[in-house]
Amino acid sequence: MAEEVILLDLWSSPFGTRARIALREKGVHFDLREEDLPSNKSPLLLQMNPVHKKIPVLIHNGKPVCESHIIIQYIDETWGPESPLLPSDPHERARARFWADYVDKKIFPPGRTAYRSTGEAQEAAKKEFIEGLKAVEGELGDKAYFGGERFGFLDVSLIPFYSWFYAVETLTGCSFEEECPKLVRWGKRCMQRESVARSLPDQHKVYDRMSEIRKKVQAQ
Amino acid sequence: MAEEVILLDLWSSPFGTRARIALREKGVHFDLREEDLPSNKSPLLLQMNPVHKKIPVLIHNGKPVCESHIIIQYIDETWGPESPLLPSDPHERARARFWADYVDKKIFPPGRTAYRSTGEAQEAAKKEFIEGLKAVEGELGDKAYFGGERFGFLDVSLIPFYSWFYAVETLTGCSFEEECPKLVRWGKRCMQRESVARSLPDQHKVYDRMSEIRKKVQAQ
Repeated sequence: MAEEVILLDLWSSPFGTRARIALREKGVHFDLREEDLPSNKSPLLLQMNPVHKKIPVLIHNGKPVCESHIIIQYIDETWGPESPLLPSDPHERARARFWADYVDKKIFPPGRTAYRSTGEAQEAAKKEFIEGLKAVEGELGDKAYFGGERFGFLDVSLIPFYSWFYAVETLTGCSFEEECPKLVRWGKRCMQRESVARSLPDQHKVYDRMSEIRKKVQAQ
Repeated sequence: MAEEVILLDLWSSPFGTRARIALREKGVHFDLREEDLPSNKSPLLLQMNPVHKKIPVLIHNGKPVCESHIIIQYIDETWGPESPLLPSDPHERARARFWADYVDKKIFPPGRTAYRSTGEAQEAAKKEFIEGLKAVEGELGDKAYFGGERFGFLDVSLIPFYSWFYAVETLTGCSFEEECPKLVRWGKRCMQRESVARSLPDQHKVYDRMSEIRKKVQAQ
């Protein structure tokens, strides 16, 4: 039976970007369906993720998988065992999962607040975002990728936020090159991979999108 | 080499309870170290989980694993492959992970608010807690356990909240027997397992603890 792989997605979503990268790392052909969010969710999205009604949703032969880190693990367990994304050692796996969870809890939320807010709230969020990135940079150290020589789970988890750097710098006034130079070098290294370069949104488009959201939020 | 397994824990924590159950399901002998929280964290806790400084932390031969769902997966990947907690099928695994994530996002937070608050805030939290439980009950259906006949990952994730039922009923005025009877039957079934019965805190002690926290929060 021919496989059917559909990804319900949104170009600017870091969570959708993770799923795109993982599929491309594994060489899986998929039908990318861009959702019109937040106001016009497709019937397929509502049917396949009735609980959260959010992208990304991976639909493999009719069965949905939701939540980006769960999707990456599903992709890793389903395709291309010769190029695993998660390390084989249980402790290393736990470590990668820990830091991926950290990205969702300590990097995404302040990053989101930093581009939406102004004044003191923005300063605080920017500071928190940078602290989060520095903590992850400490985990990276001098390695090429988080798992060493091999691009893997935590790289997939974090790299979408690299496309936020230009916008956050421009909107909040900071320099990631100064704050976390190793992470910036890692970001450039990841961008040399086809899976990442094809999946990450253009940083200027991200800036435009964030500016647009920012204006709406500020007007409310 | 003899294995050294230490669990930094707190008796009343649903997250610590998950780790205890998983270790006991696998028959792992461990040294349970009760932390004096929140004010008097041990140097070992601060050393082993410097990022979040939270229990539970599983320390296996000197190496820490943090975050309860990550700990359960580590335990599952490290001990007792003949009695796995996660299903072998990738889609079933994704499904178990999805609902475990749901427990953390949609059941724990309103449950916590329900016993700490009063008036409208409490009513709203109670309603949300019950809705969350009903959604999970839908996933359980008429099965013995979430994975079917076998006690597994999602059972471990959710069962600690069964020990909250008496306290939440008493403090907020609701009946889980009426609201989600299948889940109550599942809770009783899980309690027949030694791993669960030994690990869950006594429901009256949970009530006392919640009442105490509630008084402190209300006094602030």
